[in-house]
Amino acid sequence: MTSFAQRLAALQKALRERQWQGYLVTQNVDLYYFTGSMQNGYLFVPAEGKAVFYVKRSVERAKQEAACDVRPLGSFREFSQSLKEKHPDAFRGVGIRFATEFDVLPTQLYLRLQQMFPHVEWVDGSRLVRELRMIKSPEEIERIRYAAEVTDRAFQRGLSVLREGMSELELVLEIERQLRIEGHAGIMRMRGYNQEIITGMVASGASAAIPTYFDGPAGGLGLHASVPQGASREVIERGEPILIDIGCCIDGYVIDQTRTAVIGQLAGKHLEQAYALSEQILQQTEHSLKPGTSCEGLYQDALATAEQANLGKHFMGYGADQVKFLGHGIGLEIDELPVLARGFAYPLQPGMVIAIEPKFSFPGEGVVGVEDTYAITSGGFERLTLTERKLFEV
Amino acid sequence: MTSFAQRLAALQKALRERQWQGYLVTQNVDLYYFTGSMQNGYLFVPAEGKAVFYVKRSVERAKQEAACDVRPLGSFREFSQSLKEKHPDAFRGVGIRFATEFDVLPTQLYLRLQQMFPHVEWVDGSRLVRELRMIKSPEEIERIRYAAEVTDRAFQRGLSVLREGMSELELVLEIERQLRIEGHAGIMRMRGYNQEIITGMVASGASAAIPTYFDGPAGGLGLHASVPQGASREVIERGEPILIDIGCCIDGYVIDQTRTAVIGQLAGKHLEQAYALSEQILQQTEHSLKPGTSCEGLYQDALATAEQANLGKHFMGYGADQVKFLGHGIGLEIDELPVLARGFAYPLQPGMVIAIEPKFSFPGEGVVGVEDTYAITSGGFERLTLTERKLFEV
Repeated sequence: MTSFAQRLAALQKALRERQWQGYLVTQNVDLYYFTGSMQNGYLFVPAEGKAVFYVKRSVERAKQEAACDVRPLGSFREFSQSLKEKHPDAFRGVGIRFATEFDVLPTQLYLRLQQMFPHVEWVDGSRLVRELRMIKSPEEIERIRYAAEVTDRAFQRGLSVLREGMSELELVLEIERQLRIEGHAGIMRMRGYNQEIITGMVASGASAAIPTYFDGPAGGLGLHASVPQGASREVIERGEPILIDIGCCIDGYVIDQTRTAVIGQLAGKHLEQAYALSEQILQQTEHSLKPGTSCEGLYQDALATAEQANLGKHFMGYGADQVKFLGHGIGLEIDELPVLARGFAYPLQPGMVIAIEPKFSFPGEGVVGVEDTYAITSGGFERLTLTERKLFEV
Repeated sequence: MTSFAQRLAALQKALRERQWQGYLVTQNVDLYYFTGSMQNGYLFVPAEGKAVFYVKRSVERAKQEAACDVRPLGSFREFSQSLKEKHPDAFRGVGIRFATEFDVLPTQLYLRLQQMFPHVEWVDGSRLVRELRMIKSPEEIERIRYAAEVTDRAFQRGLSVLREGMSELELVLEIERQLRIEGHAGIMRMRGYNQEIITGMVASGASAAIPTYFDGPAGGLGLHASVPQGASREVIERGEPILIDIGCCIDGYVIDQTRTAVIGQLAGKHLEQAYALSEQILQQTEHSLKPGTSCEGLYQDALATAEQANLGKHFMGYGADQVKFLGHGIGLEIDELPVLARGFAYPLQPGMVIAIEPKFSFPGEGVVGVEDTYAITSGGFERLTLTERKLFEV
C-alpha cells in the first residue's frame, strides 16, 4: 500500500467512525497529501469504496501524479452527476453528511456545494484532516530532515556574509538564494486566512520588534505597509540582536529554525539574559518532549519560567502584541497541529513534528530567541534542525 | 480627501445604491486598499457614517498606518457588541443586509458571522469590491509603472546571464534576486483559491509546455509534484524557446510581462511563425485598446486570428489544458478584473490596468509568446511594461 493509499484509508476509517458518508477535499495542500498531486480539482473520498480525484486542470498531469483514480471535472452539473453515479453508496438513504475543509473553503464554493446537493448536510472536516496530517510518516519526517539540512547551509551562508551596515533585505536575500537554489518553493505555505510567509523573518534591532499582523512572536517592519512583516531596508548595526528566523519548503515540506546573531556583543545585559533564558526554556521544554506530555502544559511551563525571570511581558512578543503559544506543528504547512498553547489538550504522540520558539521582544531594541524543530519519537524526540545552538557573535 | 477616504466614499455610495447597510472587509489586500494598513482585523464600512477598522493585531501598527478609525477587535462577542454600538444606523429596522467577500472568506468565518448576527442577511460583495478596485487611480498606476521598471531591469539581468546548460531555476533566481533587491515582496498575490505565484514562470523548451493547475496559458514542470509550476531543474538548450514570464509586487502593486528568448535561433519555422503571430495579435489588440471596447470581443478577435493561422489548438495552452482568456486585470493582485474572456461584457474604461498575453504552446517543444501590461486612458492606452518587444536571440 502506498503512503497515499494509507492516508486515504485512515480518512475513510475516520469517516465511518463519525458516520459521515464522504469527504470532499478541495485545498491544494490537502489534495497533495491524499493524492500525491496538486492539480486543480476536488477529491471525493467516500466512507466506503474508491476515492476519485475530479480534476479541472491539468487532467493529464494529475493522471501522471495521483495515486488514485482521476476523472475530468467538467461543469459543476456534470461533476454533481458523476459523484452520484460513481459513489451511489454515499448518496443512499437520508441524513447524508459530507465533510469538507470549512477553515479554508471560500464561502462562494460552500454555497455552491449546498446548491448542488440539496439533500446533503455539509459538516466541518477541517479538524479531522488537520489531525490526520498532524502525525507524520517516516517518509514525511525524512523530507523535513532534508529541509533542515538546507536551512542549516543557508544559515551558514547568511553568517558568512553578515556585516555591519548591510540591510536586513540584503542579508535575507543571501539566505534566500541558498534556499532557493536547493529547491525552496519560494513560500512556506500557511493555512491561516490572510497569512503569508516567504523565507521567514530576518530582522535586526528595533525593526525586528515592530509588531505586525503575523501570528508569530516577532513581526518585523517589512518593506511597506502592504508587505508589513519580516526584513526591511533598515541597516544592521553593531550590538543589536539579529533575529534569523528562517525556513523553506522543499518537495512540499517546511522547516522552521531561529538563531540570534550579533555583530560584536549584545548591547545590554538584559538582552544577553533574555537570550540565555530562551535557550533555557528550550532545554526545559526538551526534558518534557515525549509521548503523553500535554501541549498546553509546555506553553504554561515556559510562560511560568519567563515570568519568574520577570520577563513575562516580553515573552513571545510584547504587551498587547504577544502571541499566546510556544510552538506549532509543521509539515506541509507552517501552521499545523498541535499548537503549544492553552486550549490544545493534545498529548504529544510519536510522529508529531513541532517547531518550538521561545523568544523575547524589546520594543526599540530588538528580539532575541531560538527555535528548533523536533519530531516526537516513542522514546522522546529527535531534533531535526541541525544548526549549533548558541548566540552567534560575529 | 486622501485616496483611502475616496475609496471608502465610493464603497459607501455603492452600498447605498444597493440598499446594503454595511460591508465587512476581511481580506488582507482589500483591507490595505481601503485603509492603507494590512494588519489583521475587520473593517466595517456602514452605508452612512464612519468606517472603523477593528484590529486583532497589531492595533498599534494599524493606528500608525490606517487612514480611518482603529479600535481593538477583542473577542468575537465584544466585536459584535461594538459593531452594534458604533453603527446603530446599520442595525436599524428589518431586512438588514451586510456584504462581505464570499470569494475569499473561509466558510468557518462566514458561519460565525451568521451566528453573531442572526438578524443580518449576508450577501456576496466580492464583485462590488473587485469592480471598485478595477479602476485604478493615477497613484496606483504610478506604482505599477515603477514595478514595470524594476521588471525591465530584472529581465535585462536575466538576459545577461542566460547561457546554454544553465537550469531554468538558475535563470529565474538571477531575475528574482534583482526583483527582490529592488523591493519585490517575494510573491505576486492572487485572489483565486489555491493559486500561488512567486516571480512568474520561467521555463524552456518541453518543460514550459507541461500543463499545470495554474490559471494561465503556460504551466511549467516546476520543482516537484508539490510545487508543480514554473521553473524546474531542467537545463536550457540551444534552439528551444525560453519563456520569461515575470513580474513582481512592489509596495503592494503587481506587474506582469512576458518575453521569449532563444539561444541561437528557434529550432523550427512553426515556432518562429507562432511567435510572430503572438506579436501580431498583441498589436491587433492594441488597435482596439480604448474606452468602450468589449473585453470579450478582444479575446474572440485574438482567437479568430489564431484559428485563421491554423494555430487555434495551440493558443493559450494546448488542447484540454487551454485557458479561455487573452488577458487579465492586474493591480494589488494578479487576477483582477476585467478578464479578457467570454462572459466579461465590461467595456474598457480609463483606469483599467490589463496584462495581455497571447501565447502558443507546443507539447514537447515549448511555449512562445509575449505579454505587456497596459493602462487604459481616455484616448486609448499607455503601455506600462518597458522592455523592447521582439524575439530575443542571444
